[in-house]
Amino acid sequence: MRELVGRPGTWGGLWLRLGQAALAAASIAVMASANGFAGYTAFCYLIASMGLQALWSLGLACLDGYALKVKRDLNNAVLVSLFVVGDWVTAILSFAASCSAAGVTVLFERDISFCRRYYELPCGRFQLATAFAFLSWALSATSAVIMFWLLASF
Amino acid sequence: MRELVGRPGTWGGLWLRLGQAALAAASIAVMASANGFAGYTAFCYLIASMGLQALWSLGLACLDGYALKVKRDLNNAVLVSLFVVGDWVTAILSFAASCSAAGVTVLFERDISFCRRYYELPCGRFQLATAFAFLSWALSATSAVIMFWLLASF
Repeated sequence: MRELVGRPGTWGGLWLRLGQAALAAASIAVMASANGFAGYTAFCYLIASMGLQALWSLGLACLDGYALKVKRDLNNAVLVSLFVVGDWVTAILSFAASCSAAGVTVLFERDISFCRRYYELPCGRFQLATAFAFLSWALSATSAVIMFWLLASF
Repeated sequence: MRELVGRPGTWGGLWLRLGQAALAAASIAVMASANGFAGYTAFCYLIASMGLQALWSLGLACLDGYALKVKRDLNNAVLVSLFVVGDWVTAILSFAASCSAAGVTVLFERDISFCRRYYELPCGRFQLATAFAFLSWALSATSAVIMFWLLASF
């Protein structure tokens, strides 16, 4: 069980963290460049949640890099418990933010046709930011499952 | 590990399943009684997802009841793997549906003030149905975590 790909302190884990942070940052950048996003709670929440995701993933990426450099093993029960709690909290928040942003985007696009009525509304950017958020969540969920599995196998 | 509360084939498991099914059914009933819900994708998806949740939970409640009656042990790896997959799929779908419905409800209530402008919109029912969906998801997530833990401890 200890040979799981993507566990902390390995190259797989490092790339997973960097991917999460990069996608979360892309989501924030696209959403922040969309005019008028601040008027919608779901989009503000998406930025807040992706910010937390980016900070958490970047922090753990630094830890992974350090562990790789000094060849330290991060597989101990206390550290993994900490990662499990953090990963699950960020993954659940990211998923909630992605889903509520997706709900609002679909509403604008299809149900109340805001995108066709108000040309100044940057619907394309809302969609792109939501897509990046979902991708970031997918990597974050992968990490969360790996950590939970590691913890259960101690 | 095998003494986990809420594992399949116990009274705890049975009550957990019945709670999930009842809350999902309540969410469907409230949403279906709200006029005009069918015009919004997020609310239709909430009904579909809660329908799946209610069917799955009711099916497993019957299985738990049967196992209690004939005193059969359901803790084998094949059955638990099946429960893990089903529970995780339904829990993720329920959470996605709850979050997107919540996103749309908050948008109506606060951001674009549809609830104040269109008095015929049953915002109270939308909120109640969303709250029931979140409660159903909370129980479903509990089951999913218990099942995953059971599987990892085999």
